[in-house]
Amino acid sequence: MNEFDRVQALTYDENDDLKDFRQRFYLPDSNLVYLDGNSLGLMPAKTPLHLQHVLEYEWGQRQIRSWNEGWYNRPSEIASKIAHLIGAQEDEVVVADGTSVNLFKLAWAALRYRAEKKTIVSDELNFPSDIYIFQGLQDAFGGQHNLRLAKSADGITVSMEELERCMGSDCALLSLSHVLFKSAFMYDMKAVTRLAHQKGAMVLWDLSHATGAVSVDLNACQADLAVGCTYKYLNGGPGAPAFLYVRKDLQEKLFSPVQGWFGQHKPFDFSLQYDAAPGIKRFMAGTPPVLSLSALDTSLDILGEAGMDRIREKSLRQTRYLIELFEKYLKNLGFELGSPDQDRFRGSHVAMRHPEAYRICQALIDPAVGTKTVIPDFRDPDVIRIGIAPLYNTFEEILDSVVQMELIVANQLYEKFPVQRNAVT
Amino acid sequence: MNEFDRVQALTYDENDDLKDFRQRFYLPDSNLVYLDGNSLGLMPAKTPLHLQHVLEYEWGQRQIRSWNEGWYNRPSEIASKIAHLIGAQEDEVVVADGTSVNLFKLAWAALRYRAEKKTIVSDELNFPSDIYIFQGLQDAFGGQHNLRLAKSADGITVSMEELERCMGSDCALLSLSHVLFKSAFMYDMKAVTRLAHQKGAMVLWDLSHATGAVSVDLNACQADLAVGCTYKYLNGGPGAPAFLYVRKDLQEKLFSPVQGWFGQHKPFDFSLQYDAAPGIKRFMAGTPPVLSLSALDTSLDILGEAGMDRIREKSLRQTRYLIELFEKYLKNLGFELGSPDQDRFRGSHVAMRHPEAYRICQALIDPAVGTKTVIPDFRDPDVIRIGIAPLYNTFEEILDSVVQMELIVANQLYEKFPVQRNAVT
Repeated sequence: MNEFDRVQALTYDENDDLKDFRQRFYLPDSNLVYLDGNSLGLMPAKTPLHLQHVLEYEWGQRQIRSWNEGWYNRPSEIASKIAHLIGAQEDEVVVADGTSVNLFKLAWAALRYRAEKKTIVSDELNFPSDIYIFQGLQDAFGGQHNLRLAKSADGITVSMEELERCMGSDCALLSLSHVLFKSAFMYDMKAVTRLAHQKGAMVLWDLSHATGAVSVDLNACQADLAVGCTYKYLNGGPGAPAFLYVRKDLQEKLFSPVQGWFGQHKPFDFSLQYDAAPGIKRFMAGTPPVLSLSALDTSLDILGEAGMDRIREKSLRQTRYLIELFEKYLKNLGFELGSPDQDRFRGSHVAMRHPEAYRICQALIDPAVGTKTVIPDFRDPDVIRIGIAPLYNTFEEILDSVVQMELIVANQLYEKFPVQRNAVT
Repeated sequence: MNEFDRVQALTYDENDDLKDFRQRFYLPDSNLVYLDGNSLGLMPAKTPLHLQHVLEYEWGQRQIRSWNEGWYNRPSEIASKIAHLIGAQEDEVVVADGTSVNLFKLAWAALRYRAEKKTIVSDELNFPSDIYIFQGLQDAFGGQHNLRLAKSADGITVSMEELERCMGSDCALLSLSHVLFKSAFMYDMKAVTRLAHQKGAMVLWDLSHATGAVSVDLNACQADLAVGCTYKYLNGGPGAPAFLYVRKDLQEKLFSPVQGWFGQHKPFDFSLQYDAAPGIKRFMAGTPPVLSLSALDTSLDILGEAGMDRIREKSLRQTRYLIELFEKYLKNLGFELGSPDQDRFRGSHVAMRHPEAYRICQALIDPAVGTKTVIPDFRDPDVIRIGIAPLYNTFEEILDSVVQMELIVANQLYEKFPVQRNAVT
């Protein structure tokens, strides 16, 4: 590492046209290098004040009256803002429940609609809980469905050929994560969706690692269904509610298995017969979580102002920069790149593999090691994920993280950390 | 109405041993009489400060590290506090998702477990969205199940005889609201559960209108399953997460159809095969909503300190008092009592029926009518619900609400309000 690197990083930051957005987030400590925005995004600086208003005025002073004064429409308002980030129309998205529940509802709806076909296809690099949902659905539909997982030849990517091989004419549903949680491999959404449609299957995209990080254009890709979480690059806070998307022309053909209060056509008629709401609202279940919904508001305005094109453009410059530093300073220390190096196949995080990944992460997080506290996350068995959130991460932070990793690995500073793992990292 | 009534109400309040709890809640306006705690409980005064800590310290300063520093265990901690209020063991309750989703999960699990039986029994006075969930399950199980709704002879209660008539030997599941949302009729949980077990059915109780308002002892009643919401008498805030209960000996026999991340045995092993967590955690789905969970904490401590026995005892004194005033001042104005007058069959709200109920509600809510703003809620077609939350409602407020109703109806002050209805009231 040399002085030139530092000057270069600072120059990149100086010339970054998104640089002012960093100040919109709560940055507690100048020694902290937070590179885990793909797990939990930083808190927007205005969120506490905004929630204080929701608590003290809306709940405290207006109580139940706030339902008519704003809460009832809030899920749609928040959903509209998300729609703009993912290339959907405003009435194609709702915010409701969690990602797993939404995945369950939409996958169920698709399997029901394509009842004559009995295969679900996903891939072996998908987030495990997506697979769990499909396994639960196999059971829920009486064991009639096959679940076929496309294989990865390199542990990083899944090829179109392999997807095609898995998708016979019996495929009802193809469900994939747009950006894979571990390697950051990004599928070509348009090509994959076209393939699925050629095979007569519906496609359900999990956008959890994509929304707010890469350009997503669901309408242009003619995607059928999608779900996503809001606490990663959307900075909605821990356990913030998820969203789901159903393409307009499919909405009246599909039904949610969870027929709740907010999915009913006219809930305040108190009819004893369920009548699915027209349009996207039928995919809501119960009362929406107003506090968490409101926390999302602040952050979505920031994303809307920055614009996904600029965010993606900076994200690619940053991940490329990280990979350059990786090649120069880390590759010779036993690291291997665990992400695609081609821009068009990479999301906004970079995976680095090392046999001592777990202990290196512990050393990075420890404020007593080196000059910076670096927060990446660890993924079993040997992956360090460096998540880059272009709205608040700087090039200098990326440099700092590589400096720390080099320091820790070159001097084996990780050796004093235990190999035993915590429940969550 | 006379001076004696006022003195009597004030004396009741003076002698109330729960009177100091009122100060634990945010009371914005001395002219406001809030009698809708059965829809949305008032905000505990400490909630904003508590959430500020969760936001600024836990999310803002500790970010992802807070998962290991408290968030991961928070759902269990909150669930334990709820367990103490409903006569359950700490490891029989989890906080997760919304009431509809939880009802779906547990009813599905019961129907799956009792696969040889094909009837679901509920009643026609149950909250409509509970019925919608059952209708969705009929569909999800391929239309094999009958849904039978016990009838009410008086629109207020459902008799044991009628329940027994509906429950043939084919009944897999009996699911009822412990306290009915409109009339406040309260089932004898022990007797009904015994009846269901005699018939070979499982019982699933919806405790939404019961928890925090009446004494519930799930274990003593040998109840199988229960769900409930937390934004009514538990004061968790708008759309706060729901809870569910599964009796200990049933936990390993039942499965959730929504197999998510937090229901997996060892989620951080990232195995591709779902393996249900032992015990109650298997009924969780995705990442819990930390902000809303944390808001619940403040309120549950207040309830725990007051104790359900004292709360129930005061609730009965207050609903009795309201019914006495009703008999004296409102009955002759075209009102009819829509709730049971026997204490043991009544929850913590009182329904009053009037042909002009909707407009009377509008007049009660309008600060320009009379001296108090009274907030009850309206339920189609002719019910005014007066919800009494013993922790913050006073006897004087009950008197004030009757004074206002008498004023409005005796002078037909409701006539200037429109008959057209808002979406939510």
